[in-house]
Amino acid sequence: MNKEITSRAEDYAQWYNDLVIKAGLADYSAVRGCMVIKPYGFALWENMRDQLDSKFKETGHQNAYFPLFVPKSLFEAEEKNAEGFAKECAVVTHYRLITDPANPAKLIVDPEARLEEELIVRPTSEAIIWNTYKNWIQSYRDLPLLINQWANVVRWEMRTRLFLRTAEFLWQEGHTAHATAEEAITEATKMLDVYADFVEDYMALPVIKGVKSESERFAGALETYCIEALMQDGRALQAGTSHFLGQNFAKAFDVKFSDRQNKLEYVWATSWGVSTRLIGALVMAHSDDDGLILPPKIAPVQVVIIPIAKGNDTSDELGSQCRSLFKVLKAAGIRVKLDDSDHSRPGWKFAEYEKKGVPLRIAVGLRDLQSKSVEIVRRDTREKQHVSLENLVNRVEELLQEIQNSIYDKALAFRRAHISLADTWSEFENLLDKKGGFVSAHWDGTTETEELIKEKSKATIRCIPLNNPLEEGICVYSGKPSKQRVLFALAY
Amino acid sequence: MNKEITSRAEDYAQWYNDLVIKAGLADYSAVRGCMVIKPYGFALWENMRDQLDSKFKETGHQNAYFPLFVPKSLFEAEEKNAEGFAKECAVVTHYRLITDPANPAKLIVDPEARLEEELIVRPTSEAIIWNTYKNWIQSYRDLPLLINQWANVVRWEMRTRLFLRTAEFLWQEGHTAHATAEEAITEATKMLDVYADFVEDYMALPVIKGVKSESERFAGALETYCIEALMQDGRALQAGTSHFLGQNFAKAFDVKFSDRQNKLEYVWATSWGVSTRLIGALVMAHSDDDGLILPPKIAPVQVVIIPIAKGNDTSDELGSQCRSLFKVLKAAGIRVKLDDSDHSRPGWKFAEYEKKGVPLRIAVGLRDLQSKSVEIVRRDTREKQHVSLENLVNRVEELLQEIQNSIYDKALAFRRAHISLADTWSEFENLLDKKGGFVSAHWDGTTETEELIKEKSKATIRCIPLNNPLEEGICVYSGKPSKQRVLFALAY
Repeated sequence: MNKEITSRAEDYAQWYNDLVIKAGLADYSAVRGCMVIKPYGFALWENMRDQLDSKFKETGHQNAYFPLFVPKSLFEAEEKNAEGFAKECAVVTHYRLITDPANPAKLIVDPEARLEEELIVRPTSEAIIWNTYKNWIQSYRDLPLLINQWANVVRWEMRTRLFLRTAEFLWQEGHTAHATAEEAITEATKMLDVYADFVEDYMALPVIKGVKSESERFAGALETYCIEALMQDGRALQAGTSHFLGQNFAKAFDVKFSDRQNKLEYVWATSWGVSTRLIGALVMAHSDDDGLILPPKIAPVQVVIIPIAKGNDTSDELGSQCRSLFKVLKAAGIRVKLDDSDHSRPGWKFAEYEKKGVPLRIAVGLRDLQSKSVEIVRRDTREKQHVSLENLVNRVEELLQEIQNSIYDKALAFRRAHISLADTWSEFENLLDKKGGFVSAHWDGTTETEELIKEKSKATIRCIPLNNPLEEGICVYSGKPSKQRVLFALAY
Repeated sequence: MNKEITSRAEDYAQWYNDLVIKAGLADYSAVRGCMVIKPYGFALWENMRDQLDSKFKETGHQNAYFPLFVPKSLFEAEEKNAEGFAKECAVVTHYRLITDPANPAKLIVDPEARLEEELIVRPTSEAIIWNTYKNWIQSYRDLPLLINQWANVVRWEMRTRLFLRTAEFLWQEGHTAHATAEEAITEATKMLDVYADFVEDYMALPVIKGVKSESERFAGALETYCIEALMQDGRALQAGTSHFLGQNFAKAFDVKFSDRQNKLEYVWATSWGVSTRLIGALVMAHSDDDGLILPPKIAPVQVVIIPIAKGNDTSDELGSQCRSLFKVLKAAGIRVKLDDSDHSRPGWKFAEYEKKGVPLRIAVGLRDLQSKSVEIVRRDTREKQHVSLENLVNRVEELLQEIQNSIYDKALAFRRAHISLADTWSEFENLLDKKGGFVSAHWDGTTETEELIKEKSKATIRCIPLNNPLEEGICVYSGKPSKQRVLFALAY
């Protein structure tokens, strides 16, 4: 067990924080609630971003960039959206600092440099984007408009946790405009599928697709589609959302198009986003007490080579052999690192790369080379094997794929074992308390009952699964009639 | 001539603005001084960013991400830097909006939600980054630390122009830490070379490398290296800077390392950046009265295929032939677009893609196909040629390379013709007034004279070229002795 990292059994929340920091993913910063994404964490994010970005482009979307600031008058135009975010807005009120007359080494905000209208640091960009779309959309020929933006956003959260909930975070936000409601709904569900495929295929994390209950919807949406994942502590985590916004923003910003019959109609909208929060999900879903376990498809380093020199060996034969192995793997397109530094000993390096979740470790000693083989260790199962040099590239590629599948299968088995049916309130409470995971229970469909359940148990409706089977039943809390089960859980 | 675009001769500044907007690069926004980067402009930026990013990684740098906000107390820690940026800072003072008691449809800033310490929206990130480096650097083993960040920054400029000077812009900022001054200087000049190579090779824009005079240095730097380019109107444009920061930030944030002798020393720093301003340079350097001229290496679309249907042709033979040409070019790795929309006629499309600066246009008619050839037109020279289908990919690749070289050569010839020597003040003024470009003149080396020259002529010292030949002379303004000529120009 890695001594720097608290064990999951001891304190799951502390384990998570230790791991994020000690594995070099992120760090606290001097700004309340904001984090620094360290190089290793950012390399992971780049791999995730690049995959998502190419999926967005394959589905016809283009990237653009809109201002960081939203003037207050635009921000408040769509009332529900404004109301939803007002409580957590960073507000720019001034545009200049001056020397403090009382202390020439200090600066103060220049009271003369007050903005006529305050600017909100975007918590999401619907307002500024739909205000722009007004100028871009005139006719049905301008539709659909399929745009995505990679950006930073700010939501002034009171209780923050690295990656999971920070005042500033990185994300992408798609904002599309359509001629019909049907087309917009198709877009929203298509992007939900893109997210689900990415999270399952690349992050090796199974998700449940569904829609949110009314009270959990995005502020300003008619329908919020979501993907929900399960963490090792039995809590759910919302991994991505895609919203059907109806004509709310088109009406707030007066965005109309002339259709084929030359009739003016309001435009239909979607928005959808995933964020650096996904990194938190990745860490919590797969990792163990020794460190990260990263899926090979997005791991910044897939294979680390560590030379094992004998005490009195001063020749460079081992070094040159390791460098040639490195080149062979690199040429095959594998993300490989050679750690031949002499600052630290092999044992320390083993622990270090376990902590960092590198999927495969290749230890190379001179004796191995004489037998034309190396020792490979899998991070996820710790299984060791000797692989002949001539078969190395093939075997490494196979192992990376096996690890990818095996991590996914493990997470899927865990989730399957953690969807439980509850038919009475005591079963419901008991399951949440003792077992965790998703509890599938009947709900009478009212916001009132949903609120009461949340008050009593802290559980929220994570989603109403897509294609949910209809089934007559009795609400687990109110005893009123219900038409379907929904998924409840404690959640991040 | 494109009627949407003012000609250069009529009004160069208006030509630039028209072009940026009509070609779909950017748009004004509802936020004072902030722009929207439209999909076509953003695709151009992505191509530029990706090339730069791979050059940074090849030279050993890693990306990371630091907070958007800088607490005022950190911002003011390095005094010169703070003084340099204080006049143009966007300041966050509050973190919540509430419903206006006087008007429930409006929001106001909640006076109860004032921040204890104001946050500056980063105009540059030295302060927040060096405050973080303090925790990351203990020993010489932690050095060099080579980090880059792609980010948005805000400088509250009073007079803004799309891409060239906007309140918010996108950039990258490298921030490196080193054990010795020599190593830091080597890094600063290496990154200047990376910038120069990129701008010349990819943007087809020749640059002059040099150092800034003391008064034009980055606030907080001991030396600012720069690359300067020349626009078609004879004004210079600073295309990138790389700063040797000495130990100023290490001292301000107390960043020390223990060297090999276990002695504590302050760390040496560099920072370097290029921004979306480069897009402005690209537009102004190459384009003409009909639209953009984009270098093929970074053009979002390198080749556009336009089918020329005869009025009564209703078969899809032309369409299917065009689609197969598209596939052939795409498979060869060429960024190709097929515009087979029937919303608009070929003549309109020709003008549209000229405006957008697509390097090659392929017009395809059924008669061409019968003769197994197509007509290709170069955007830069408008030269037409018929190319046989079997030779198409080769010829397109050759032409793209020829255009890249030819645009560069043209810009280089223009710049060579616009570096003039001035030995008297009247020659100096005359050259600036009549010819423009760089004026190479003796300067006595004092900030006082530099200021006077700027007041009288509006010209600034763009740079003291690297490896500038020493030459005894007389300052063009003060008549005092001078050891070298420096380059003056009117500048963006």
